[in-house]
This record gives sequence, structure tokens and C-alpha cells, in this order.
Amino acid sequence: MAGNAALLARRERLLGRNMSLFYEEPVHLTRGEGVWLWDEEGRRYLDCYNNVPHVGHCHPRVVEAITRQASMLNTHTRYLHEGILDYVERLTATFDADLNAAILTCTGSEANDVALRMAQAVTGRTGVIATDHTYHGNTTAVSQLSTRMPPVGGFGGHVRHVPAPDSYRPLGGEPGEAFAAAFAGKVEEAIASLQASPYGFSALIIDPFFANEGFPDLPPGFLDRTVLAVRKAGGLVIADEVQPGFGRTGSHMWGHQRTGFVPDVVTLGKPMANGHPVGGVVANIDTLSAFRKAFRYFNTFGGNPVSCAAAMAVIEVIEEEKLIENARTVGAHARAGFQRLAAKHAVIGDIRGSGLFMGTEFVLDRSTKEPAPELATRIVNAMRERGVLMGKIGVHQCATKIRPPMPFSREHADLMLSTLDDVLSGL
Amino acid sequence: MAGNAALLARRERLLGRNMSLFYEEPVHLTRGEGVWLWDEEGRRYLDCYNNVPHVGHCHPRVVEAITRQASMLNTHTRYLHEGILDYVERLTATFDADLNAAILTCTGSEANDVALRMAQAVTGRTGVIATDHTYHGNTTAVSQLSTRMPPVGGFGGHVRHVPAPDSYRPLGGEPGEAFAAAFAGKVEEAIASLQASPYGFSALIIDPFFANEGFPDLPPGFLDRTVLAVRKAGGLVIADEVQPGFGRTGSHMWGHQRTGFVPDVVTLGKPMANGHPVGGVVANIDTLSAFRKAFRYFNTFGGNPVSCAAAMAVIEVIEEEKLIENARTVGAHARAGFQRLAAKHAVIGDIRGSGLFMGTEFVLDRSTKEPAPELATRIVNAMRERGVLMGKIGVHQCATKIRPPMPFSREHADLMLSTLDDVLSGL
Repeated sequence: MAGNAALLARRERLLGRNMSLFYEEPVHLTRGEGVWLWDEEGRRYLDCYNNVPHVGHCHPRVVEAITRQASMLNTHTRYLHEGILDYVERLTATFDADLNAAILTCTGSEANDVALRMAQAVTGRTGVIATDHTYHGNTTAVSQLSTRMPPVGGFGGHVRHVPAPDSYRPLGGEPGEAFAAAFAGKVEEAIASLQASPYGFSALIIDPFFANEGFPDLPPGFLDRTVLAVRKAGGLVIADEVQPGFGRTGSHMWGHQRTGFVPDVVTLGKPMANGHPVGGVVANIDTLSAFRKAFRYFNTFGGNPVSCAAAMAVIEVIEEEKLIENARTVGAHARAGFQRLAAKHAVIGDIRGSGLFMGTEFVLDRSTKEPAPELATRIVNAMRERGVLMGKIGVHQCATKIRPPMPFSREHADLMLSTLDDVLSGL
Repeated sequence: MAGNAALLARRERLLGRNMSLFYEEPVHLTRGEGVWLWDEEGRRYLDCYNNVPHVGHCHPRVVEAITRQASMLNTHTRYLHEGILDYVERLTATFDADLNAAILTCTGSEANDVALRMAQAVTGRTGVIATDHTYHGNTTAVSQLSTRMPPVGGFGGHVRHVPAPDSYRPLGGEPGEAFAAAFAGKVEEAIASLQASPYGFSALIIDPFFANEGFPDLPPGFLDRTVLAVRKAGGLVIADEVQPGFGRTGSHMWGHQRTGFVPDVVTLGKPMANGHPVGGVVANIDTLSAFRKAFRYFNTFGGNPVSCAAAMAVIEVIEEEKLIENARTVGAHARAGFQRLAAKHAVIGDIRGSGLFMGTEFVLDRSTKEPAPELATRIVNAMRERGVLMGKIGVHQCATKIRPPMPFSREHADLMLSTLDDVLSGL
């Protein structure tokens, strides 16, 4: 821990102040394997948080793919190379037939930055709708979708925010038709507002799993009326699959497939190449060509042979190790365990999620559902002290964010649950 | 070549139309090593173009660093890790003492996107000045600096373009004091215009080598008056070192050191990790902290341990293999060779460059200096047919762009020169 003080001082000197860091006592990591992480003192942590090392930390297949291609050739897309073609063919085969082409980028932020311009190219308009508790990335344009901090010069005026759905405290009554209608109604209002503005309406951008919003439990068809309203207004639906994609939710490869609609544009990031910097935009070839024509896009590192090899290895491992099925069964097992804990600990107000993306919402009082964000912070830090890493998220900042590497097993889930039981018992 | 037709069709189907590709007959690459590239038929090409594989295609030291770290741990900066601290310490040691901190990104585009916001955070204003023949990257915000294509919704109004300096056809007379004064005068006008606008003046962003502008030969102190004018107006100078950085120009590690000024913000990209997706922003710790405070920036892949290991290997190889010295001596040797060719071929109007970034400008007539862009295209394609890869650039699109991997030797330069002699003799 003395080492941490020295590292923290170097960090502030070299990387700047106000740089975010997890946990009251930050973790100094040195090694990772599968679902496990080790710190500099050799202490082992169960990783229940990191979705970027999707097929497991340092998966040998991904490392080997990177090494092999990095030793052979790494160049850009102004030469012909089969790596990008083989990968995009394999990737788009997991989507609806209409989503048949892709642009590869280096980050999910770059992907969303492109997706917004794709909608502009198709519609000739610039207005965008997002939820009021979302995050789609860090570029200047994409940051405008976030409500967190007004940028210098102010927000652009072309963004409308709609209230994030909250299944635990549903707008419009109980989850069901009224809940979906309430959300769609807000989107319709936002469309009308943009249509009356100089920007016009170009796109709704949405994580179909609403991960940053706290992944509410949504009824089937929740977005049907919303998608219809967007289409009717000539806008595009952009599905940000950076978090729910690649089988994370256990039922489907993509979050929008689980929610039951076909978006016009899909954006990808984090888990795409197990931590190698790769992002992407999937769309119909006509949408994609319209973007290329309007904006002449080139990305030096995007779609390079090494990135494609890493991304290809991830898709192969997901299939070969049956990781989507694993996410479904282990996720269900974990949620059943949370239900048992809820019977014992009144502080657990709600249990939500799908596959290996889940969490519990902590409340001060189950009847009033009063959020307990400080308590959630204490719990997450206590879990870290006991060697289990998880995060915190949601509209009320009182939900745990549990998204482990996909090879997470029942035994790992049991260890997480028993540790949480201990922590909650000691509150 | 039949294979190319099939690949081109797949490419158009999977990646979209209007995607840029080099050469009339594109090259299908399969392998790279040092300054050499091989196509699918086993044909070898001398790479005189690619600056991304800075220390040579597939340099074993970089591959080994990537493999070692990817097998050990790859995670983000919300945990403590020494890799990013060691790298930023080593990187900033190559700059003026004021430039002592860094943010790591995944691309040069992301770096410039951050740099513009850094200037906003410091000045509270948003107006930017760039040259009229530049390119700083592909994000929505950074694309606004390019004059190439008006975006949907139009240019933002916060950008002013100044004429790119052209040493072969200098504004304000011969290269010298009047030439520098003419450029500074245009910048002063642009500052005044922004100050009279609602945006105000925040930054001048400039490649100190003016690579995309055709790398004019600039007199010492060319930017002195310009930098003074920016500072006097309370703006920041952003030096985009994506192209001249990492010793490319043979005389200094950074382009701005060669030009003789200390910028407020420096952006890095392409060669930084030999093709592994890494970019960065170097600035004073106070500038960087102001940005972090105003914009709360986090980049999932930025500064990850694998990226830092790759980038560290590149700096080490540059030093150990004395690549800056090599760039200086081989660059001088090559330019002497171009002078001999110019004595023989009247089509060579000008020879410019520094270190291993150079080119010849082709003209129809030396006295009128009428640019010969079509001829330049023919020459570049004929060189490709003879197994030498180079590019084309500049205000008049008639300059060759020669920026080979840094281990380029005298023998490689001689092969490039004799091939060019052949091509020019056969025109």
C-alpha cells in the first residue's frame, strides 16, 4: 500500500489530476488469466466487472492470433488484405441480413462518432435523441450525448434527452404496455421538438440493454412503438452494442436481437477484440456507402490485419467455448443466488440483468425504494477488500454492475455470492 | 491480378463503395519485414511510403513486447499500472521541460479531438485556426479542420483557414523573412476574425513540418512571429506531430524542435507504436489537468498495458538502432541523389524534405513552375509497377511523398533512385 502512494503521486504528476480510479484503495494489477486478476503483492481477485477481456484475461488464442499476425504484416486498408474481409464476413453473418457491411474503427467512441454521421448522410439532418443517463463515448461529438458536464461553448442544441427507463420505478405505472408507451411517448415528443428546430431529426441512439441506465428489466417489444416512431419520422435507429454485444446477455449474440428489433446502424467496441483497440459500425451497405460518399472516411489503424486477427479469434472462442450458453446458465444461476440473498438481506431492493450482465439495486427501504448510493459504494469497496471486483451504476447509482469475463463459471458465481453474503451480513 | 478483382468485389460488398485504395492496380499485401513488403504472389516491394511501421515492418522487439504484455495483463487506467507511468515518463523526457504530462489515446484523431478541447478548457473559447490544405484526423470535430468536404449541416463557423506555406511558390516573395511574415499576417487576420465572432480564439493547430501541405522548406524561425501572435491573443499552439514526430525529420525527435518553438500541446499518432493503435497528447500538467477538470475524459483502451509496452519498445528501438541519425544521413544521401536526377530530368521542379520525409515536385515547366499532378500520378503508379511504393501529396498534388520505415539504408535509397531514374527516362 506504501507502493500505491508512490504510484498515485507519479500518476498525478504524469497523467494529470481528476483522472478516475476504482475503489477507495485502488488496485495495482500486474497479471490476469481467465476471470482472475493478481495485484503486485500476489493477491488474487475474482474479476466480476471487466467485460473488455470478453473471452477471459489474456486468452491464449487471442494472444496467439495477435502475435502471429503482428509478426507477419500490420498495415492499413489502402492496400488489399483478406483479414478485414474474412472478419467482416464472419461478423455480419451474426446479424440480420440487412446489416451486411461494416467499417472498422479503433474504439467504440470512434464507432459512435461515425454512426452519428451515417445518420446525417442518410437523412441530411443532424438532430439526435439519447436517454438522459447514458454514455456513448469520449469524442467531442459523442460527448454531446452525455448529460454529465456541459462542454465549453455549451451543448450544441441538436440533442434531445428522454428519461431512461427504470423498471424498478417505472414511468407510467407497472412494467408492461404503459411503461413502453410512456418511453415511446417521450421519444415522439423529442422527435417533434427536433423537427421544429433547425437541426431536424436524424437518429435515436440507444443501448438496447440500457446498460448505463442500470439495465432495467424490459418487457418483450418494449422498443416496438419507439422504433416505429423513429422510422415514421424518417430517422435511423442506432443500437450501441458496446456493452450488451457479443453474447453478453446470454440469449442472443446482440442486445437488439434480445429486445426484438432490427436497428439501422449498430456500433461495437470494448469486448470486440478482448482489449486490443477495435471498434466497428455495422449497417446496410447502402447506409455505409452513403456515409463514405458524404464524409470520405479513412482510419489509419482501423481494420488493420492485427486488429482483425484479434477480433476474429474472439468470435471463434465465443463459438468454440459456447460462451453465450455459459452466460445464460451461469447468469441464471447467479440471479437465483441473488434471490436467496434478497430473502436474507432487506437492503437488496431489486435483482436485474440477463446472462452475464447483472446487478442488484440497494435501497434504504423496500417499500419506498429509496436508493442507497452510499451503501452501494461501501459494499463495492468491501467486496474489493475481500478480493471480488465489481462496479456501480444506474440512474440512482445504487446498482452493482456485474459483467465478468464470459468464462465465468457457477463456482465463480458462488464465490461472488458467498462473499456478498458476508459483506451484507457485516453491514 | 484475377485475385484482385475478386477481392475488390468482396471489399465493395463488405466495406462499402468510395473506400480509398492506393494505385491503379492495388497491391494485395501478405507479409512485411523491415523496409520490405510482399504481395500474394511473393513479389517484393521496397516500402518508401509507410511511416506507421516506424522502426520497420514487424520489428521483432515490438512484436515481442506486445506478446509478452498481452500474455500477462491488458486492462484499463482505472486500476494502477506501472506501464503507462514508465512510458509517459520516458516519452515526456524527450520534450521541453514544460511539456511534462500526457494523455494516451488509441489514434491521432482521438488525440487531436482531445487537444482542441484542451485549448477550450484553458481559454474558455472555441475558435480554431488551421491551414487550408491540412488533415488532422477523422472524428466529427477534427474533420471540421479539413477543407475537403463540407459536412452535413455545414462547417461550424468556428474554424478559420490560412493559406498553407509553399516554399516553391512563396507568398510574399522569396523564402525568408517576408515569407514568414506573410504567413504570420494571415494568422493574425484569422485571430482578429475569430475574436470578432461569438467563438473567440482558442488555438492554432499546425503540423510544424506541414507534411500534408507538401512539407515546404522553411527558413529557421519561420513560425516565430506566428507563435508570438497566438500567445499575445491568449491562444494555444497545438503541434500535430503525427507525421514529423519520433525522429522522422532526422535532426530532432520532434518537428517543433526542428522548427524552433515550444508548443502548448503536442499530438501524436501513427508511428507511436509501430502500427499498434496508440495516440497521445503531451502538454504541461496544468493544461492537462484543466482539460480533465472541464471534460472528465476516460478512454477504455487508451494507455492500456499492451499499448504502452508497444510504444515503449518503439522509443527504445529508435534510440538503440540510432534511427534518428540514420534518418539524417540516409535522407541527405537520397536528396543528393534527387539533385543528380534533377540535372537529368527537367520534370523535377523542386526537391524538399528533411531526414526520411522527402519528395520531389513534378512540374510541366521549370520557369512557370506549372504543377504536373497527372504526371505525378503516372510516376507513382509506374514506380509501384517496378516494385517501389511511394505516395503523392501537396497543395498541387504533384509532390511525391516519401516516408519509409526508419531503418531505410543508403542501398534502399539507391534502389529507389535508380528505379525513379528508369521511370523518368521512360516517360
